[in-house]
Amino acid sequence: MHEECGVFGIYSSKETSLAKDVYYGLTALQHRGQEAAGIAVNKDRIIRCKKDLGLVHEVFDAKSLNEMGSAKIAVGHVRYSTSGNPTRENSQPMLTSHIKGQLAICHNGNLSNSFELRKELELGGCIFHSTSDTEVISYCIIKERLSSPSIEEAVSRAMNVIDGAYSLILMSPAKLIACRDPHGLRPLCMGRMMDGSVVFSSESCALDAVGAELTRELLPGEIVVVSDNCRIESIKSHCGRERNSLCIFEYIYFSRNDSVVDSIPVHRYRTEVGRRLFQEDPADADIVVGVPDSGLDAALGYSRASGIPYAMGLIKNKYIGRTFIAPGKDERYDLVRMKLNAIKDVVDGKRIVLIDDSIVRGTTSERIIRLLRSSGAKEIHMRISSPPFRHPCYYGTDVDSPENLIANNHSIDEIAEMIGADTLGFLSVESARDIALSLCPDNKNAGYCLACFNGDYPTRIPHEGSKTRFEI
Amino acid sequence: MHEECGVFGIYSSKETSLAKDVYYGLTALQHRGQEAAGIAVNKDRIIRCKKDLGLVHEVFDAKSLNEMGSAKIAVGHVRYSTSGNPTRENSQPMLTSHIKGQLAICHNGNLSNSFELRKELELGGCIFHSTSDTEVISYCIIKERLSSPSIEEAVSRAMNVIDGAYSLILMSPAKLIACRDPHGLRPLCMGRMMDGSVVFSSESCALDAVGAELTRELLPGEIVVVSDNCRIESIKSHCGRERNSLCIFEYIYFSRNDSVVDSIPVHRYRTEVGRRLFQEDPADADIVVGVPDSGLDAALGYSRASGIPYAMGLIKNKYIGRTFIAPGKDERYDLVRMKLNAIKDVVDGKRIVLIDDSIVRGTTSERIIRLLRSSGAKEIHMRISSPPFRHPCYYGTDVDSPENLIANNHSIDEIAEMIGADTLGFLSVESARDIALSLCPDNKNAGYCLACFNGDYPTRIPHEGSKTRFEI
Amino acid sequence: MHEECGVFGIYSSKETSLAKDVYYGLTALQHRGQEAAGIAVNKDRIIRCKKDLGLVHEVFDAKSLNEMGSAKIAVGHVRYSTSGNPTRENSQPMLTSHIKGQLAICHNGNLSNSFELRKELELGGCIFHSTSDTEVISYCIIKERLSSPSIEEAVSRAMNVIDGAYSLILMSPAKLIACRDPHGLRPLCMGRMMDGSVVFSSESCALDAVGAELTRELLPGEIVVVSDNCRIESIKSHCGRERNSLCIFEYIYFSRNDSVVDSIPVHRYRTEVGRRLFQEDPADADIVVGVPDSGLDAALGYSRASGIPYAMGLIKNKYIGRTFIAPGKDERYDLVRMKLNAIKDVVDGKRIVLIDDSIVRGTTSERIIRLLRSSGAKEIHMRISSPPFRHPCYYGTDVDSPENLIANNHSIDEIAEMIGADTLGFLSVESARDIALSLCPDNKNAGYCLACFNGDYPTRIPHEGSKTRFEI
Amino acid sequence: MHEECGVFGIYSSKETSLAKDVYYGLTALQHRGQEAAGIAVNKDRIIRCKKDLGLVHEVFDAKSLNEMGSAKIAVGHVRYSTSGNPTRENSQPMLTSHIKGQLAICHNGNLSNSFELRKELELGGCIFHSTSDTEVISYCIIKERLSSPSIEEAVSRAMNVIDGAYSLILMSPAKLIACRDPHGLRPLCMGRMMDGSVVFSSESCALDAVGAELTRELLPGEIVVVSDNCRIESIKSHCGRERNSLCIFEYIYFSRNDSVVDSIPVHRYRTEVGRRLFQEDPADADIVVGVPDSGLDAALGYSRASGIPYAMGLIKNKYIGRTFIAPGKDERYDLVRMKLNAIKDVVDGKRIVLIDDSIVRGTTSERIIRLLRSSGAKEIHMRISSPPFRHPCYYGTDVDSPENLIANNHSIDEIAEMIGADTLGFLSVESARDIALSLCPDNKNAGYCLACFNGDYPTRIPHEGSKTRFEI
Repeated sequence: MHEECGVFGIYSSKETSLAKDVYYGLTALQHRGQEAAGIAVNKDRIIRCKKDLGLVHEVFDAKSLNEMGSAKIAVGHVRYSTSGNPTRENSQPMLTSHIKGQLAICHNGNLSNSFELRKELELGGCIFHSTSDTEVISYCIIKERLSSPSIEEAVSRAMNVIDGAYSLILMSPAKLIACRDPHGLRPLCMGRMMDGSVVFSSESCALDAVGAELTRELLPGEIVVVSDNCRIESIKSHCGRERNSLCIFEYIYFSRNDSVVDSIPVHRYRTEVGRRLFQEDPADADIVVGVPDSGLDAALGYSRASGIPYAMGLIKNKYIGRTFIAPGKDERYDLVRMKLNAIKDVVDGKRIVLIDDSIVRGTTSERIIRLLRSSGAKEIHMRISSPPFRHPCYYGTDVDSPENLIANNHSIDEIAEMIGADTLGFLSVESARDIALSLCPDNKNAGYCLACFNGDYPTRIPHEGSKTRFEI
Repeated sequence: MHEECGVFGIYSSKETSLAKDVYYGLTALQHRGQEAAGIAVNKDRIIRCKKDLGLVHEVFDAKSLNEMGSAKIAVGHVRYSTSGNPTRENSQPMLTSHIKGQLAICHNGNLSNSFELRKELELGGCIFHSTSDTEVISYCIIKERLSSPSIEEAVSRAMNVIDGAYSLILMSPAKLIACRDPHGLRPLCMGRMMDGSVVFSSESCALDAVGAELTRELLPGEIVVVSDNCRIESIKSHCGRERNSLCIFEYIYFSRNDSVVDSIPVHRYRTEVGRRLFQEDPADADIVVGVPDSGLDAALGYSRASGIPYAMGLIKNKYIGRTFIAPGKDERYDLVRMKLNAIKDVVDGKRIVLIDDSIVRGTTSERIIRLLRSSGAKEIHMRISSPPFRHPCYYGTDVDSPENLIANNHSIDEIAEMIGADTLGFLSVESARDIALSLCPDNKNAGYCLACFNGDYPTRIPHEGSKTRFEI
Repeated sequence: MHEECGVFGIYSSKETSLAKDVYYGLTALQHRGQEAAGIAVNKDRIIRCKKDLGLVHEVFDAKSLNEMGSAKIAVGHVRYSTSGNPTRENSQPMLTSHIKGQLAICHNGNLSNSFELRKELELGGCIFHSTSDTEVISYCIIKERLSSPSIEEAVSRAMNVIDGAYSLILMSPAKLIACRDPHGLRPLCMGRMMDGSVVFSSESCALDAVGAELTRELLPGEIVVVSDNCRIESIKSHCGRERNSLCIFEYIYFSRNDSVVDSIPVHRYRTEVGRRLFQEDPADADIVVGVPDSGLDAALGYSRASGIPYAMGLIKNKYIGRTFIAPGKDERYDLVRMKLNAIKDVVDGKRIVLIDDSIVRGTTSERIIRLLRSSGAKEIHMRISSPPFRHPCYYGTDVDSPENLIANNHSIDEIAEMIGADTLGFLSVESARDIALSLCPDNKNAGYCLACFNGDYPTRIPHEGSKTRFEI
Repeated sequence: MHEECGVFGIYSSKETSLAKDVYYGLTALQHRGQEAAGIAVNKDRIIRCKKDLGLVHEVFDAKSLNEMGSAKIAVGHVRYSTSGNPTRENSQPMLTSHIKGQLAICHNGNLSNSFELRKELELGGCIFHSTSDTEVISYCIIKERLSSPSIEEAVSRAMNVIDGAYSLILMSPAKLIACRDPHGLRPLCMGRMMDGSVVFSSESCALDAVGAELTRELLPGEIVVVSDNCRIESIKSHCGRERNSLCIFEYIYFSRNDSVVDSIPVHRYRTEVGRRLFQEDPADADIVVGVPDSGLDAALGYSRASGIPYAMGLIKNKYIGRTFIAPGKDERYDLVRMKLNAIKDVVDGKRIVLIDDSIVRGTTSERIIRLLRSSGAKEIHMRISSPPFRHPCYYGTDVDSPENLIANNHSIDEIAEMIGADTLGFLSVESARDIALSLCPDNKNAGYCLACFNGDYPTRIPHEGSKTRFEI
């Protein structure tokens, strides 16, 4: 049910081997999803799709990209790897055909009313091949298409019905359409290539990868339609209806630190978090060490704010990837130890400020601290660059269930003791928001979803049964 | 669009590792489809499905069968390998969910009104993930399910709407249902295991493979429902409405020669064909040689009728399977030569009656005759154990398009000259039917479709556009 | 240690994509070995080799064959699949380099003094990468090469040292050499293509596959050297030293029935065996049924001699190949049942003469007989187209160990009872030899090894430790 | 011919699933070689080996590690991925058998007299299956073994003959032996587990990975023998004969920065290089940026020495691994761009000190600088943490051929202009050595090979033909 994903689409100024551009774009978005990848291309109004489980470069190679031929429009998707049960059925783009032709949909997000919508559709005789919200969205759009003068009008009408988080890229026989939910929960931006081609992407780093300039982010609720000759039309009828609620975790963790998300450079946000962590929770120490890779930006910010030297005390084994499985042995070895090692020469005898992006169950933090102590660290002051998780996310973030969240059941002091830290500090919820507001050039309309920290959901909460009912 | 396939289903007297039974059954039906294979199992009303492109033993191994766990009901499907473009989307069982739960469908056949049905469904907002008739059938049944008191009633009502060839095996959360179209175009039989388990299969050879006894064939139009405690119920409301029209090609080619199809042992039919070929078209020769494997039964029959010795003059390389691809070289080599070799010691200096099951384009026959002549054969009198193809098949048989059928454009004498045979004879259309009628124990109601030979279609002919419109 | 294999080599009249010819040749020899396949090509005196575990068409495809480029000389090898432990190290061609350049060796057979030779070589400081006799042969030839004026002279000198069964095809930077052990235990033949290219092969069926004419078999002890312009030189210095001893099992089982081996068409030998079985052991029955595929020729011979009709009572599932593994279930299913089925319509109520090629442990025969009886067979008179196995083979045939051979521990009557046959007969040892002598055009020098039946070994018996010492 | 590799061996205090320990150790050494991986285990004096092309976790999984069973001694190897032509034949451990049993060899390094040794061995009748020096070493040891009282004595005698760079780990039926060439060109260290097990490894990071403590490095020329009950014996007869010459590139690039190599923590060396680069070549700039990952340590050192802030201006796509292949398109995209991106927010408008580990052809540097400038960088002062390459390496480092080395053909100013840097500085050869000497606790005997920078080779230079002769 988790839909943290990356979407990418391009309307080219000329017919070309467009699958390759999508391939490069998806590779840049790979951090948003490692379970499955797919590309659909549109040549002469015929859409063909290839998708499978695996990383982008596992699913596609030069041969298969060439076989996809030249095209005028193309879209692609990478999908998050949830533990357990990856399925081909849920991989995207979802390509279906209907009375007006074909439609390919790429979706990032999670609906909050998919349970109700699905039930209603089923009562009308609809059948479902997958458990994904994307199929619900497909039905909603195509139902509206029957009586709409255009596909974009059908999308607009469907947006009256679907609720929750969604950034969509759709490809019809003749158009490329991008749209973002009225809360703006998930990011979506657009760019231009030198030759006029229009590109949509979850993050700007994928625009860099294909040599496109970032034009702007889509507004919450905006629909952008690209048609003949790369002509762009914006439909804003759903804009301004809801308070803006970009998921703050895009800054804290999801997005690549070289992306700009809703006008804020991600790296700048993270560095500022480090600075704020020092202000909120200063520690007297010899060095600042970030847990690679996601703790490094904040560690640098903490170091700059505090004057405590930034140091590389932990090193990551870059060959332990998605497919690495520890074959286990007598509990002697743990995977954390394989992935990370301490540099004894750096940490021995030192008082350390240790920065990581989050604590979920606490087990990883405990092992990292144990590793540092066994390498001679004298004191460990752990600082977390996000507030404590206390609430479930209904918008596509794979937060563990509340009973597993250590912050839900324990005080900060208790957690510190459990993981073995001398002191422990989290970023405050206020700071997480304030940093974004302070960095946003036009913060009049800015707004952020921090529901996983404070329980303040921008939409109504999904029906209880929605997660468990359809486990095909 | 070709749907020549094999279907298999089992309702077990007790919960067991049922996927293995289906695996054995499908392996026995492998000759009916080598493109894709799939199995769905039902445990505690939850249906899970695994399917992929490949042979049964390529898609499944001991590990994956064990992972499917124990189950009470299970179904499986093998799919025909059409040239060109195998797709995962069209593989079966097709597992979908709807308002009353899940439904898995296995289908052998081809609808004659799928174009119209699909269009009507689309006008109601339905979306399609595949190009297969099976998805159309799914929608029809599930639409009826909304207002039907039971799944079998929904199937019965859907049968009022769908037209053409279909043998179906369906699995709902609680039932296993088999049904056969009112013309009985495709075969479907049922059997019992010693422990009371009920088995359905396209052919009886798969019953043998799992140790079940053949009980009987389903009647054309019959619906058989298996529910709790292997209780069987037969619904005959669609029986007797149409003239029986079993595809005669099931006897000539499709079915395995150890199967019994609609009360006729296939091997007996084929042997009798050989006898009739001699009666209709006697040849003076030294030996009778069948093209392995499909010409051997008729060759034996011809030999017995004529008294001309049966001989093994052609040998087949059994290691050249589905995946063998000739890497080509200077046109020096042909694949026929790799697959078949003549035994010079047998054919040298001989006058040969050569029996094959059909001539489509004539190129294979020409090469086999050339091979025999280069090994010293003096005369070659070719006899074909089917009538000449002259008409397209709309019921799932992959007959080449009429312009490629050599019999459509040439007289028998012309064909004989083109393929290099001294004489050439085909089985007459009348004999093809009469042999079946004469072998059928209860031939009062028997009837056969010979449309590909005589153009006499039992249903209306499908709409022209149906083959080309939806090439997703 | 089992070396039943197929070898193939070609010296082309012109540089061409020769790997493809070898690919076709090896595919025709695939029945001689399914464990591993390899091809080595020689272009401008540089030899490159590709080999791996698997069938020929699994190891090679159009891409890899093209990558091997054009060549003037090429050799190839298929290797037997022994149960248990296939290793890449033992696959062939064995390509090594030495002081005079490279040498590729393809070997079919088994040495009887490899233990002693290996020990002697090791005492001289030699190291071994494999457990195969082929590495021993390589060393012996290369040691001799140091002081020999030519590679063929080195081969000739090595033949003074090595003892046992070997048919070799060697490729040096400039020459293609074939040689056969002085007893002629394993077959080896040569042929010519229309363009003058020279081909060597274990069996003539591979010559047919590449369009070459069979010229003749190599004489026992003969060395044939092909060099520039396809010039052929024969060295006969080792000929006539030993009594000819072609392995009789090449006729009974190993060779393809469309091959001619040492002047006898294999199919003719097998048919004659059927005739002799009737003469030695007539049965009163209704039909003669062969166990496919290896019992069919003899069944036809028995039928012709006896006048009892030949019938197809057993059918083989052709999709159960090398890689098929029965996932097992409650002992309800056996693999014999999956591989074979009886045609009830043929065998029901019949008295059957059942012909198979051999009985090893008896379990397979027992299951086949049970299958026939459950399909209604009234009497089963089993006839085996070989004498009973009683002795181990040291020349590359994978005969089971004596304690597992049913014929070693039981009388024929006992075996008949164990397998459930009404009567049982084996071919006599004398007939096995006499048939070959009677069919051989020039039987003055003909001679055969029947050691596995009568214990009369043509060479000395290998040292006891030789099988078990080097299990790398 | 490139032999940059990682070796690992363990003698366990008790029989256990030792292949898993080697698996963890090799995973930690994966940076030393990504072409091939292999493990050999010794149980009851029988050695079994599994190896193949690929990363450690591609070659091995839980199933294959379990199949290797329990063992008392085990060794493993990872091999460098040279461009072009990876071969299975050259992968290691090299397992051979000889008169005294089996021997598994793992080798890191390159001999300087392998051409002569191989020729001499061939003149004695030796045959070679690979092109690797390791096979030469195997022969040398095994030849000596014939007349030596022990395997370690044979190793010692072989060391009189072989010349060049080698760190070896050998496994005989009863012993684990490690040895290091008398110059100490390649590193090799030993450690102990809590339970007394003895471990050898190329680098200490692999000891950390299996929970062993670093005991010490092997001395140049030392042979360490581990036998029953983990008893350790050191043979120092070859120690002190040559000047110590550890490859300085182990500090600059090869080793992981969390390893300690010959008593110097690698990270400390690299940080010190950054400091020295500032002293030798100060630049006036706003930020210091390292090219990830290998330029980061020196960038931190430069920052600390200069007071110029350390910044993350370049980000690496961690999903572009060994197997990623850019499918290419119109030269619009380059792989550098896919692998690296600039963080515009960090570098825009800045004067940058850019630190990378080396310049080979200059193309990568040129692209990185172009990337930074297109993101707004105002000045780029490039500093290289190694001296310019000017000479070939004969000891296993894959330095490009001299004609491709930009530093060989151009002055530093010319290079700066070619790559587009405002200024360019390399570490001086003296500093590269002096830093190591200053960090080495016991620098009386310390010595380093800097031949690729200054042409001062510690051994004689290999024979000219050695690289090209044996391209099997």
